[in-house]
Formats: sequence, C-alpha cells, structure tokens
Amino acid sequence: MAAEETRFSEAYAMTGGDGPNSYAKNSAYQRGVTDAAKEPLKKAIAEKLDINILLSSNTFHIADLGCSVGPNTFFVVNNILESVQSKYQSKGPNSQIPEFQVFFNDHITNDFNMLFKSLPQNRQYYAAGVPGSFYGRIFPNASIHFVHSSFTNHWLSRVPKDVVDQNCPAWNKGKIHYSNSTDEVMRAFEAQFSEDIECFLHARAQEIVNGGLMVLTIAGRPDGTPHSHASANVTFQLLGSCLMDMARKGVVSEDKIDAFNMPMYYMSPQELEAAVELNGCFRIEGMEVLPDVSTLNVTETAPSIVLHIRAATEGLFKQQFGEEILDELFDLYCKNLVEQHYIFKSTKAINFLAVLKRKAN
Amino acid sequence: MAAEETRFSEAYAMTGGDGPNSYAKNSAYQRGVTDAAKEPLKKAIAEKLDINILLSSNTFHIADLGCSVGPNTFFVVNNILESVQSKYQSKGPNSQIPEFQVFFNDHITNDFNMLFKSLPQNRQYYAAGVPGSFYGRIFPNASIHFVHSSFTNHWLSRVPKDVVDQNCPAWNKGKIHYSNSTDEVMRAFEAQFSEDIECFLHARAQEIVNGGLMVLTIAGRPDGTPHSHASANVTFQLLGSCLMDMARKGVVSEDKIDAFNMPMYYMSPQELEAAVELNGCFRIEGMEVLPDVSTLNVTETAPSIVLHIRAATEGLFKQQFGEEILDELFDLYCKNLVEQHYIFKSTKAINFLAVLKRKAN
Repeated sequence: MAAEETRFSEAYAMTGGDGPNSYAKNSAYQRGVTDAAKEPLKKAIAEKLDINILLSSNTFHIADLGCSVGPNTFFVVNNILESVQSKYQSKGPNSQIPEFQVFFNDHITNDFNMLFKSLPQNRQYYAAGVPGSFYGRIFPNASIHFVHSSFTNHWLSRVPKDVVDQNCPAWNKGKIHYSNSTDEVMRAFEAQFSEDIECFLHARAQEIVNGGLMVLTIAGRPDGTPHSHASANVTFQLLGSCLMDMARKGVVSEDKIDAFNMPMYYMSPQELEAAVELNGCFRIEGMEVLPDVSTLNVTETAPSIVLHIRAATEGLFKQQFGEEILDELFDLYCKNLVEQHYIFKSTKAINFLAVLKRKAN
Repeated sequence: MAAEETRFSEAYAMTGGDGPNSYAKNSAYQRGVTDAAKEPLKKAIAEKLDINILLSSNTFHIADLGCSVGPNTFFVVNNILESVQSKYQSKGPNSQIPEFQVFFNDHITNDFNMLFKSLPQNRQYYAAGVPGSFYGRIFPNASIHFVHSSFTNHWLSRVPKDVVDQNCPAWNKGKIHYSNSTDEVMRAFEAQFSEDIECFLHARAQEIVNGGLMVLTIAGRPDGTPHSHASANVTFQLLGSCLMDMARKGVVSEDKIDAFNMPMYYMSPQELEAAVELNGCFRIEGMEVLPDVSTLNVTETAPSIVLHIRAATEGLFKQQFGEEILDELFDLYCKNLVEQHYIFKSTKAINFLAVLKRKAN
C-alpha cells in the first residue's frame, strides 16, 4: 500500500474548513448534480442490487470515494442507504434489514476533521474515514457492497510528466491544460487517463464483492466532442490565459506556468465503456446523461461559477504560485469570463451516471 | 447512534498537532507503558487468540480505541498485527494469512488529519478512522476481531453532574477532583465509573465477534488502595491547589473552579473484574500488573512530567479557564511539584493489562 500512496501523492483535496472560499460553502453545483442523480441512483439500487450479496455478515458496506468534507456526501449516502433499506423491506416484513457501515474516502490531505464534525447527528450508519488515493487499493478484498463516487474521476492521479518537461516534445509551454494544445500534449493526457481509469477499475474489482454495485457520476464531454470543445477545458484555457496575463505584468513567473498543468481529464461515455470492457470485471448495467443543472447566463452567475471553480482548484494554484496570487487570479478570471463569455458558445459538457456491477469471478 | 454522541459530548481529545505541548511530542510515558505491554500482548495473542474466528471473510479487523494522533497507536497496532500473523503462520505453510483492516478510534474532536498524515508508509493494513466515544456503539454487530485500548479507560464519559452543582450535597467546592473530597463526591465519581464501564463493556460485547479478544492497558490503582492515595489523584489535587492559588491572586475565578472537575477515575483490577462479571459477555483470560516505567526522582523529571500531564489534560483547562492561563498554571504546577514532592511519598499507582475474550453467545 505504501507504494500506491507515494505514487499518487500529487493529488490534491478540495479547500477545507468552512470559510468563504471553502468547498463546503461552494459546492452547490455538485449538489445540483447530486440531486439530478438522486432518482437514477435509487432506480439502479431498486432494479440492479442483489440483496443476497451480504452472505454471512449482516453489515452492508458503502463507500463514497472522493467524499471531500460534506455536505454533499451525506445527502448521497442517505439516498443510497434509504434505497437499500427499501430493497430489503420489499422482501417482506420478515426480511432482516442490515446494519450499515459507511466509508468516507478522500486524499490524505482532505479535511477529515471537518468531515467528522459535520457527520449528521441522526445518521443510521457507522461512519469511518479512509484516507488515500482511490487509484490504489484502499479496502480489503471483497469487502464493499456498494461504491459511489461523484465528480471525482476527472481528477487524474498526476499531471503527465512529459507535459511539464521542457526537454520533451509534449512540453505544454504557456498553457496549463491540454485543450488547444499540440497532439503530443493531448496524447500524454490521454495515456495518463487510460492508466488511471485502469488502476481505478482494477482496485475496485478487488474490493467490491461479487454482485456488488458501483455508481459513478462523471463530469465529462459528450461522445464525439473534441477536447477543445469541452466546457471545462475552455474554462482552464481561460484560467491559463489569466496566468499568462499576470506573467506579462510580472506578478507570476512564466517558468512556473510552463511547469504547471491541471491534472484533469474529461472523459466521454464511450471512453468509460472501453475501459470497463478492457478491465473485464464489471458489467455496465446502465449509463445515463443527467439533466443540465448549470445556468446559461454566464454574466449573471460568473461570481458564483468562479467561487465554485476556486473551491475545487485553488489548492493546485496555491502550491505552484503561492497563496498571494489567488485573489488576483480569480478576480481577473471573473472579469475575463464575463468579457469573453462567447468562447463558451460552441462548447459542450455533460454529467453522466454509470451503473456497474461486479461480475462473479 | 446520535443519542450516544450527544450523551458523551463532554469528552476531550489529547492536544493535537505536533507543537511543543502536543500529545504527539509528549507521550513518551505512554510509549514506555506500551513497550512494557508489548510482551504480554504478544503472549495473549499467541496463547488466547482463536484463529477460526474469521469465518467466511478473510479480513482480520483490529480496533484501537482512544488512539489519539500517534505515534504510540502505530507501534501497538504493529505488535498486534505481527503477533496475529505469526499465529496464522504457525498453522503451517499452507495456512492463509488474512488481510488486515485497522480502525483508529477517538473522539470526534481528535486530530484525525494529523493521525492520517502520520500513518506509516510501509504499513501492512488498510487504515480507517472512526470518530466517536467508545462509551457508545462505534462499530457494527460482530464486526471486530481484536480490540485494543491503552490509557483510555480512566477517562470518564463526563464529570458527574452533582459534583459541579452547588445545590447538591456532592458539590465539590474548591476542588477539581474527588481525592481528598467528601464521601458524597467520591460516591458520585464511583457511580459514574460504574455506569461508564458498563456502557463500555456492553458496546464491545456487541461489536466483537464470538471468541474475539480485547486487551486493555489501564492506568489504575492497586487493589485496596484508597482513592486519596492514588498517585494520579494526588497529581490532580496539586493541580487544583495551583488553580486555587491563582484564584486568590485574582487570575482565575473561584466560581469557575467550583464548576469544574477532572472527568477521570483510576480503577483497581478488582473493580474491573467486578464489572466484567456483571456484564457477563467476557471471560478474563489474563490480568497482569505491568512493570513500573516512571522515574522516582520527581525533582529531576518534573518538567517532563508536567509536559506529559499538560498534553493529556490542557484541553479541559482551556475550555473552562481560557488558553491564557495555561502557561501560568503549568509553570506553577511544576514549581509546586518540586517543592511538595513529599506528598507523593505514600501514593501508589499501577498500570495493568487485562485480556478479555468474548464468550460465545
């Protein structure tokens, strides 16, 4: 396990605490998607969960991967728990409802203290926090009955090494992401994504019991949409140009920008299907594009969009450029977002939900 | 579970972080006892653990209750894990060594962030943090194979209400602990202890699998030693007199002292035996007084004794009297400890280890 942790040590957690820039205060968008995913999630459990997977133990183990600090994770866990309870109840008045143990997972740098303090008082489960990257093993063999993860799989385990190495053809000079970059950069990111999703599925295949379910809510791009037209990528393109503006003013070193990239990749449903096929341990039980929850008028909602993006990403910028540039960067980003809103005209984004079942060995 | 948490909400965690007054830097005494307990712990596992308790699952679940932030908990867990592995290995080359999942438990206010960051890189187990008071339920039914707890059972779940209520005969005016107090105060503490140890054993009886082991290292007093002669109690008596000195100087309000008591009780081996008998679910497999690890010369070691006591208790004093009095309180305590070292002449203390096995239902 040690090797895994070192390997994935580049990953970052959402902004902790409960201050004005915290993830806890700026995750309403994720909450919106969580709400949109509620019914599909309940339906997946009602229709696809085999309650005989419990075997001899009477505890149902749920894991939320990349849970951050709440409150979204608590809403989701509650949905899952109630749906599983209903499923057991539907077997008749004599069916025994299991106890529940919920494992809240996130990076070792996540603010678990805040997560634990926010645990609902009236919860119907035993809670545990599990630190570590989900690209490695975090649970014993065949110990989890239901895995959930929302808005986490677009985080790569690391920035591909080559894109920040000036001696490599894939060096991504003057940019912080792969959209609008060279083919070499694009291929480096695609290779990293392939490796990561393979690690993710391989680890989960060992941890989830035969017949267990995994429901992933994924921020991605529609099938056939080139990376350069994915909304999130254009967002990072704009953030990168803000950094370059600041470099021209001497506020930020251009070398530091050249040595920095966002470790994110927005997959398409087809890419996920291909990875599941390659892994071979899961069957896709359902795949569904969620209704769009974002507001279309960028000029009106720019400040809240910025707060949302800042809560999820400022850790990355802070580490590379220092805390002192954060306010200026995100202020400039907000200004440019309003002025250049037209660049989002032809971009596309989707959130989709995938229901995977662990095949019997 | 919610009710339990509210009920036990008065409990405090050790001082977090890794500063000069932190528990992490000032738990060498506990480390000494951990070392003294190492061999008895290994012996208990070698002789008393039934490896057939794993049943269908191949994961061995260990819980360390009141783990604080490390590093002691990691040493103990390692001892346990190696001993259990040896036990399985001793069954011959074909015996399957289980995987291990370790649950690190402490109060919700414990510094789990630091605990997680300190997890050994080369550990051979899956780690999880479990927040909550061990006087209530923290794990599912029959889910734990081995429970360990060291230096935790002298912490009561709360100060008995009556001793801080000026309308009660058990009001403990001008004192912060029950030693040298009235019979009413003593009885109130004894009643709280009885209730707490009953809750502790009752919760563990549900959580530990049949045949599972619980090893407790307890800071206590020898059988037959009155509370007023227990070393820890005299320590608190002296701390109380320091507070009263500060009250006379106007630094601390006397009302606040009257409304404050230390939630601690030092049990004797006989008291534990009686509680186990009353609970009925455990068999005592061993009970052993550990060698004394404290140095006798108080004057030479006073500063380190003070740091140790401060790391474990300053949270209590901070909450009641404010952070600003802490340095003065512990400086005065150090001075008085040296001057009045003779009051410890006739006091007694023991650390003892109890090995309990969960009886089959």
